[in-house]
Amino acid sequence: MAESAPSLLVVSAHAGDFVWRAGGAIAAAALRGERATVACLSYGERGESASQWLAGKSLEEIKAVRRAEAEAAASALGADIVFLDRGDYPLRETDEAVAQLVDVYRRVQPTVVLTHTLADPYNGDHPAAARMALQARVLAQAIGVANSDGSYPSKDDIIGAPPVFFFEPHQSEQCDFRPNVLLDITPAFERKRAAMECLPAQKHMWAYYTDLAVRRGVQVKRNAGPNLGLPHQTMGEAYVRYYPQVTGVLA
Amino acid sequence: MAESAPSLLVVSAHAGDFVWRAGGAIAAAALRGERATVACLSYGERGESASQWLAGKSLEEIKAVRRAEAEAAASALGADIVFLDRGDYPLRETDEAVAQLVDVYRRVQPTVVLTHTLADPYNGDHPAAARMALQARVLAQAIGVANSDGSYPSKDDIIGAPPVFFFEPHQSEQCDFRPNVLLDITPAFERKRAAMECLPAQKHMWAYYTDLAVRRGVQVKRNAGPNLGLPHQTMGEAYVRYYPQVTGVLA
Amino acid sequence: MAESAPSLLVVSAHAGDFVWRAGGAIAAAALRGERATVACLSYGERGESASQWLAGKSLEEIKAVRRAEAEAAASALGADIVFLDRGDYPLRETDEAVAQLVDVYRRVQPTVVLTHTLADPYNGDHPAAARMALQARVLAQAIGVANSDGSYPSKDDIIGAPPVFFFEPHQSEQCDFRPNVLLDITPAFERKRAAMECLPAQKHMWAYYTDLAVRRGVQVKRNAGPNLGLPHQTMGEAYVRYYPQVTGVLA
Amino acid sequence: MAESAPSLLVVSAHAGDFVWRAGGAIAAAALRGERATVACLSYGERGESASQWLAGKSLEEIKAVRRAEAEAAASALGADIVFLDRGDYPLRETDEAVAQLVDVYRRVQPTVVLTHTLADPYNGDHPAAARMALQARVLAQAIGVANSDGSYPSKDDIIGAPPVFFFEPHQSEQCDFRPNVLLDITPAFERKRAAMECLPAQKHMWAYYTDLAVRRGVQVKRNAGPNLGLPHQTMGEAYVRYYPQVTGVLA
Amino acid sequence: MAESAPSLLVVSAHAGDFVWRAGGAIAAAALRGERATVACLSYGERGESASQWLAGKSLEEIKAVRRAEAEAAASALGADIVFLDRGDYPLRETDEAVAQLVDVYRRVQPTVVLTHTLADPYNGDHPAAARMALQARVLAQAIGVANSDGSYPSKDDIIGAPPVFFFEPHQSEQCDFRPNVLLDITPAFERKRAAMECLPAQKHMWAYYTDLAVRRGVQVKRNAGPNLGLPHQTMGEAYVRYYPQVTGVLA
Amino acid sequence: MAESAPSLLVVSAHAGDFVWRAGGAIAAAALRGERATVACLSYGERGESASQWLAGKSLEEIKAVRRAEAEAAASALGADIVFLDRGDYPLRETDEAVAQLVDVYRRVQPTVVLTHTLADPYNGDHPAAARMALQARVLAQAIGVANSDGSYPSKDDIIGAPPVFFFEPHQSEQCDFRPNVLLDITPAFERKRAAMECLPAQKHMWAYYTDLAVRRGVQVKRNAGPNLGLPHQTMGEAYVRYYPQVTGVLA
Repeated sequence: MAESAPSLLVVSAHAGDFVWRAGGAIAAAALRGERATVACLSYGERGESASQWLAGKSLEEIKAVRRAEAEAAASALGADIVFLDRGDYPLRETDEAVAQLVDVYRRVQPTVVLTHTLADPYNGDHPAAARMALQARVLAQAIGVANSDGSYPSKDDIIGAPPVFFFEPHQSEQCDFRPNVLLDITPAFERKRAAMECLPAQKHMWAYYTDLAVRRGVQVKRNAGPNLGLPHQTMGEAYVRYYPQVTGVLA
Repeated sequence: MAESAPSLLVVSAHAGDFVWRAGGAIAAAALRGERATVACLSYGERGESASQWLAGKSLEEIKAVRRAEAEAAASALGADIVFLDRGDYPLRETDEAVAQLVDVYRRVQPTVVLTHTLADPYNGDHPAAARMALQARVLAQAIGVANSDGSYPSKDDIIGAPPVFFFEPHQSEQCDFRPNVLLDITPAFERKRAAMECLPAQKHMWAYYTDLAVRRGVQVKRNAGPNLGLPHQTMGEAYVRYYPQVTGVLA
Repeated sequence: MAESAPSLLVVSAHAGDFVWRAGGAIAAAALRGERATVACLSYGERGESASQWLAGKSLEEIKAVRRAEAEAAASALGADIVFLDRGDYPLRETDEAVAQLVDVYRRVQPTVVLTHTLADPYNGDHPAAARMALQARVLAQAIGVANSDGSYPSKDDIIGAPPVFFFEPHQSEQCDFRPNVLLDITPAFERKRAAMECLPAQKHMWAYYTDLAVRRGVQVKRNAGPNLGLPHQTMGEAYVRYYPQVTGVLA
Repeated sequence: MAESAPSLLVVSAHAGDFVWRAGGAIAAAALRGERATVACLSYGERGESASQWLAGKSLEEIKAVRRAEAEAAASALGADIVFLDRGDYPLRETDEAVAQLVDVYRRVQPTVVLTHTLADPYNGDHPAAARMALQARVLAQAIGVANSDGSYPSKDDIIGAPPVFFFEPHQSEQCDFRPNVLLDITPAFERKRAAMECLPAQKHMWAYYTDLAVRRGVQVKRNAGPNLGLPHQTMGEAYVRYYPQVTGVLA
Repeated sequence: MAESAPSLLVVSAHAGDFVWRAGGAIAAAALRGERATVACLSYGERGESASQWLAGKSLEEIKAVRRAEAEAAASALGADIVFLDRGDYPLRETDEAVAQLVDVYRRVQPTVVLTHTLADPYNGDHPAAARMALQARVLAQAIGVANSDGSYPSKDDIIGAPPVFFFEPHQSEQCDFRPNVLLDITPAFERKRAAMECLPAQKHMWAYYTDLAVRRGVQVKRNAGPNLGLPHQTMGEAYVRYYPQVTGVLA
Repeated sequence: MAESAPSLLVVSAHAGDFVWRAGGAIAAAALRGERATVACLSYGERGESASQWLAGKSLEEIKAVRRAEAEAAASALGADIVFLDRGDYPLRETDEAVAQLVDVYRRVQPTVVLTHTLADPYNGDHPAAARMALQARVLAQAIGVANSDGSYPSKDDIIGAPPVFFFEPHQSEQCDFRPNVLLDITPAFERKRAAMECLPAQKHMWAYYTDLAVRRGVQVKRNAGPNLGLPHQTMGEAYVRYYPQVTGVLA
């Protein structure tokens, strides 16, 4: 297979997840001039919009608000975004949703995939999204698996085997999230902060996820050298790499 | 066995650990009028005093500085402190150190024990301290195990089976730290902050551990009820309970 | 949220499970004057009624027998019981069953939830029940998730985040059941025994589960103090707490 | 290597362990006419003789009592017994103790080895015994490792690679004990009971370990066929096989 | 229950899996004169036939080719084979497929069952097949579970509790495959090689799986005795036993 | 800290380990013109030299042979080699051995470290070497830890926090070895083969480790793209990365 152009695909259960959890990686890719695409399986309209339900909004109104916010945030990060509108709470694992994702994979030809962890005792939609993202990735590799319109893919349409990274859940330890990759997002953090500010209903989260970036930044530094007692300004995001890293150099 | 008066024992590898990782629990016990005792196995003189070595201080000077700071911090929390001076980097597991701890257990008669996690790939002294704390706890229960002066304990001298909690390491996920207890330290946080400020050489850690208390406080709230999108001011510390909880009521 | 009145909800795959595995906890709650509710997803009519099938009973006869026995046992424990009649062997995970459970949660407003373990290589209905109990608990918290009649809940209808405990499966170690809570059921054991005796078809189990209560009682004592070689009469049940314990005091 | 005559070696931390935990396997081997040898690393004189310390006995008196009891129990089972007298609470891991065990291995030429689990949060002597038993087993295989008298072994003196089984600890789940072998000890149980009765100071344990044999016997039956609701009289012991089973037939 | 005649059942997701992964066990059973049956859930027509799709074959043509190859390979091993034709990529878990498997179990009356591992991040069909094989095994034991034609089984029709072994996946460590049984297939290897050669489209796999048999053969020897530096000619297959082994003799 | 020149350090328990398990990584570094250093803790004179003991060689003769072979193999790979001569079977964990390793770390200033896995039920020397390699790495970072001659290090002498990789043990799955890095060693394999041929006493291993390189090479390809049914010639080695990867780009 020829070397592919870098292309980042983020599979997100709800409309806000990609901002808090992977905004730094997305912005960093965009800053490098690479393609980044977010696929939102739902808007998070039932399970993650409590304040709007309390305010008496209708289901359709809530979906529209969430969609607009997510579009603004994706734009701030420098990413394309597609909405699959599969519903949330619960996000159901269906043949149709997986088939839609297979099409996305074949169109986007991702070289890197980000999604949720496979365990999350606080939110079953997150593992459901991860399972579908993983299943679609395998199906999209197979030349014998048809596209959702019934046509068969050509050899160029099928995808390779892009690495998959799980982004950080809200309560990491309860989700068996043991980071094996610490990403330095210092240059991209300004964009991530701007994207967070596109989500005004979660204003209390802005500080929370800024603090988390500091904490992961401390670990970026700590894993790169001894602590001589000095402060620093590195910002970070944590990931779990799912498949083995393939490399020609140990580093 | 008669019901014992509450008595908290904290076994700490180095002079600062108990402040950052368990200061809230210690202060909360003291605020309830309970006895709290910190046993420091070393001063952290070699491994956790880089800035003082860089400043050209001698080993004895560094130990004296660390001791004074730890005494001030313990006092701010409302705890007694004892120093076993076993050396660090590495903290060696010896019969003598364990025997000293057996004496401490029998004197303090703890009803709760706090110590480090059994895994820490960044600092081998922490698991070594935890292993000795656990071994001494079992030996101190046995009427056939002599005190360090060779005398045999009476039935009153041996201890019960106090619960053990591991406090939070610096990089929790890498230490297999999956919290199963979230402690609300809101009323005690002011004292914890005062104790942190007794450690001026780690000034950059004050904000870091304040942020961590906020993060664990968010989880205290999240595990007690649904998130309705509102901020809050709960401060928390995370722990791993090592032995099963014994109780008469599920709650 | 205001402090809620204690309310225990037990989600059971088959009609007998709640007696053998959680009868002590249920009876203890009732003895304290608290509300206890059992939700049976099936009667265990196909998979746990071999002797009745061998005797030539019909499916409806078997269901009626099992229902009557379970009602008698719940009554002996002091609990209410509801039957969802979803069928067993296999118990299927469906939107309808989950929606029924969401309604139960919102009506019962549990402060504690008991259910099966998430692994059981001997009986797939048990993990299926647990997964539905957990999913419904999260959905019932969301104000955007409708009741099964299509109405939306009010702020008072949604539930908090009650702790969940897994009760003990038949072959505990094969089910990854590592108890982290040992419940003293000594005062409640007489009621548990009476409830067991409401299930005459499993007469050989009465002694088995009495022995198990002794074994778990020994562990209750062993985890509360050293073994001085004396017998005792504590009876116990073992549980796994699923979410972190939230507390103001370590004990 | 020629097929060896069956020879069972049990490495036990304290004088009583082999009776409660492996008495059935030992008696079954003896009933088949096979050689069985127990190696006791200590008498359990400090940590498992509380009632005798409370009665004011001296250390040497206690060791003599425990030795006599263990000899009687081994005799009841049909096994030889050797005492290494390495001390308990703590049982120390030393070159000398391991060298003694290497000699035992080379003399006994075991075809099966039984010992404690590698984890036991209630008793550190048990894992220490297991670690030494495993280390000595590997050293005894090496022709370059001298005997304890300094002589080098001949090709006939070194041992093969006998399978190792961990016997059941007191609180199995807390010791990561997930049985993968269930041993039917029905024909041997009478001898096991007789051996238990050689230990009068633990009279309250006789019933406890009889009940455990019933419980493991139920699992022997349950793993061999469906439960048709009938009682039975199978007695069992549970083990964890440490190395892969080597076989010519899957069964 | 009376002792049953040996009967091996292999539940395979795709048409080739049983050859590469369990061909030695199947051939060994046949060589002992025992019955062996392979149940193929699909032909692997979409996911494991890339070269035929690239050659422009139709779906039905590919299925026919795969079926013929699998029949030839089963014949070479000495096994019967049945095709359930449930489709692959994805293999869906349905009531119908499970009901078909229940019928197979009751007809074959297996004394040993082989299937895929429960984890495989490279191919979701494999765990799906394993889950259905396990579920059907439990359902087939229950006298209250009807056959697929609606009739109820007699006491003779239901099955016992045959042991289950997972065979080796392609990337064992990524599938949590930790072998606990090493099978010596030396006498059966010639037949396994012949069966592999019935699958000409995967000619490059013949050497790969021959090498793997050598590697597992080395482990067969290594776990049966020390390495004296000599080569040998043992061939092996690795398995994971899922339920505890029930035995009367530790060996 | 300034960017350091690449420097690979391999900590090996016995004289042959680095060849079989990490020869590809070493040769690849040398081919890139980077420094590579092997630190052998022992010669493997007692535990891994059975054929020479059988031939009647003396201990000193065996050590000399093993040393010469290891020097030749290191030379073939392009690496420096140092021998610490700490003895094997057992390799003891001592302060002196760790202090020697601290000196090696400070002299070599490694940017990458390779060593054994932390678990190996077949050879306790391997985990002992790994524990010492890890402990020395942490101590060498601390400016307060003296060199073995009693002098204190300067700021330039202490090391950074180089990543650590565990190389592949003989029976990977029994050693909890789940590779998360697959290294393409195709260009370096010729040198690895030449180094293997420097060890004539293990001639039967040459083919074994060549086959293993093929197997890991298949996985290198499989994790980089779908399998289209074609053979290939990639050679690989598998590693476990111990600390999180620190990076600026997910790939």
